[in-house]
Amino acid sequence: MRVGPIMAIGGAEDKLDDKVILSTFLQISGGSQARIAIVPTASSIEAAGERYKAIFLGMGADSAEVTFFGNRSDAQRPSLLAALERATGIFLTGGNQLRLSSILGGTPAAEIIRRRNNEGATVGGTSAGASILSSHMVAYGASGNAPKQRMAQMVAGFGLVPDVIIDQHFRQRDRIGRLLTLVASNPRLLGVGVDEDTAVLIEGLDVMEVIGRHSVTVVDGRGMESNIHQVKRYGEISVTGATLHMLTAGRRFDLQNRKVLD
Amino acid sequence: MRVGPIMAIGGAEDKLDDKVILSTFLQISGGSQARIAIVPTASSIEAAGERYKAIFLGMGADSAEVTFFGNRSDAQRPSLLAALERATGIFLTGGNQLRLSSILGGTPAAEIIRRRNNEGATVGGTSAGASILSSHMVAYGASGNAPKQRMAQMVAGFGLVPDVIIDQHFRQRDRIGRLLTLVASNPRLLGVGVDEDTAVLIEGLDVMEVIGRHSVTVVDGRGMESNIHQVKRYGEISVTGATLHMLTAGRRFDLQNRKVLD
Repeated sequence: MRVGPIMAIGGAEDKLDDKVILSTFLQISGGSQARIAIVPTASSIEAAGERYKAIFLGMGADSAEVTFFGNRSDAQRPSLLAALERATGIFLTGGNQLRLSSILGGTPAAEIIRRRNNEGATVGGTSAGASILSSHMVAYGASGNAPKQRMAQMVAGFGLVPDVIIDQHFRQRDRIGRLLTLVASNPRLLGVGVDEDTAVLIEGLDVMEVIGRHSVTVVDGRGMESNIHQVKRYGEISVTGATLHMLTAGRRFDLQNRKVLD
Repeated sequence: MRVGPIMAIGGAEDKLDDKVILSTFLQISGGSQARIAIVPTASSIEAAGERYKAIFLGMGADSAEVTFFGNRSDAQRPSLLAALERATGIFLTGGNQLRLSSILGGTPAAEIIRRRNNEGATVGGTSAGASILSSHMVAYGASGNAPKQRMAQMVAGFGLVPDVIIDQHFRQRDRIGRLLTLVASNPRLLGVGVDEDTAVLIEGLDVMEVIGRHSVTVVDGRGMESNIHQVKRYGEISVTGATLHMLTAGRRFDLQNRKVLD
């Protein structure tokens, strides 16, 4: 059972002004005692982690180190794994989430990230680093507000958040169509679309709180009917009865019971 | 925690002669005391369940009933749900697995199937009914032995078998390419390709045994490297170091440790 917090950031979070999201990440990772490990694997260059290192150190973290796994062999190297083992906060940068799933999936590195979260460490990520957190993720797909067959490719994520699919850059890149498509394919998954400079903070298995500048769109398909199983090729999918919530900063949502709390 | 058995059948199981697979399903569901609920939702016609009803009754089941959920409202109807509640064996027929995930995913019917399995009831399925059992499933895709980007669409299954992706009609329809693609996308998933008239029987969370006429292909990607995150459009994916097992009847595989037992 997970006991550490999860933070999924929709990308393009403020890095210059108040840094509300990144400072919250630091705070829930231990503040001045926090040891942050930054994993820039979603990017193909190690330097992608350096900016976050400077930010976390600048805000007063006890330590911050960049842990770059460039291939699946790296993800077994003891010296790199040790940085994850001692971290109180693990931060996954943006880039290509298929790099995260294909390079780290099923490796000791992913196993340690999961275990450290179970032991109380915070795990968070932005953009690609947010997508990878759930059990199912969007690898890539098309934009647009109309749900269509074959508009997105789903793959397995790290599975730290079960029964949820997290999408990011959500309204900025007009991704409601693909989220509706994936929820229609199996409404067991709750769709969570996180806007840029916005994040969800999940504590325990239950409660998700919104922080940051814009909104989080929640798609609950339990009451939905769709014809996705009949639509051929790239056709548009008809959806009725989906429940939609757009939650601004401070709103909280109960993931188990799928209810807005306040 | 699951305590009931799972049986995933690769389709086209013998229904006329020895019926090795279907009689094993009946036996692990209670034999002459078994109460079988047949769910033909993957097919669009209720009659798809009648043949299985006749077979299970003919082999001596205490009862067998067809429980057809034709849409998501049906999946909330108390009279239909009661049949699942009293079943000692729940059998999902073949058809289109996207019907199962989109019609039953996140409904009380799927919840009861999961809970009954936790309480000890057997859950099994053939073809589409096998695909739906795992946490991630192939909704549809292309045949062929070369792994290629975008060759298969993955959606969420019922999740009775975690961290596994089950494919069916496996060698008969030449599906190794799509299974390699999906394992490459995140090697956390173990690929399990079940041939026709062949099944895997999973007891506890650990041990998977092969029964029936042909083989089960296991793709373990832990040692794999692939370039899936670099391949554009519909390009072929390069894969190295995947571990492949082809297991005939009687062979057993440890799912937790990914080891052939005997």
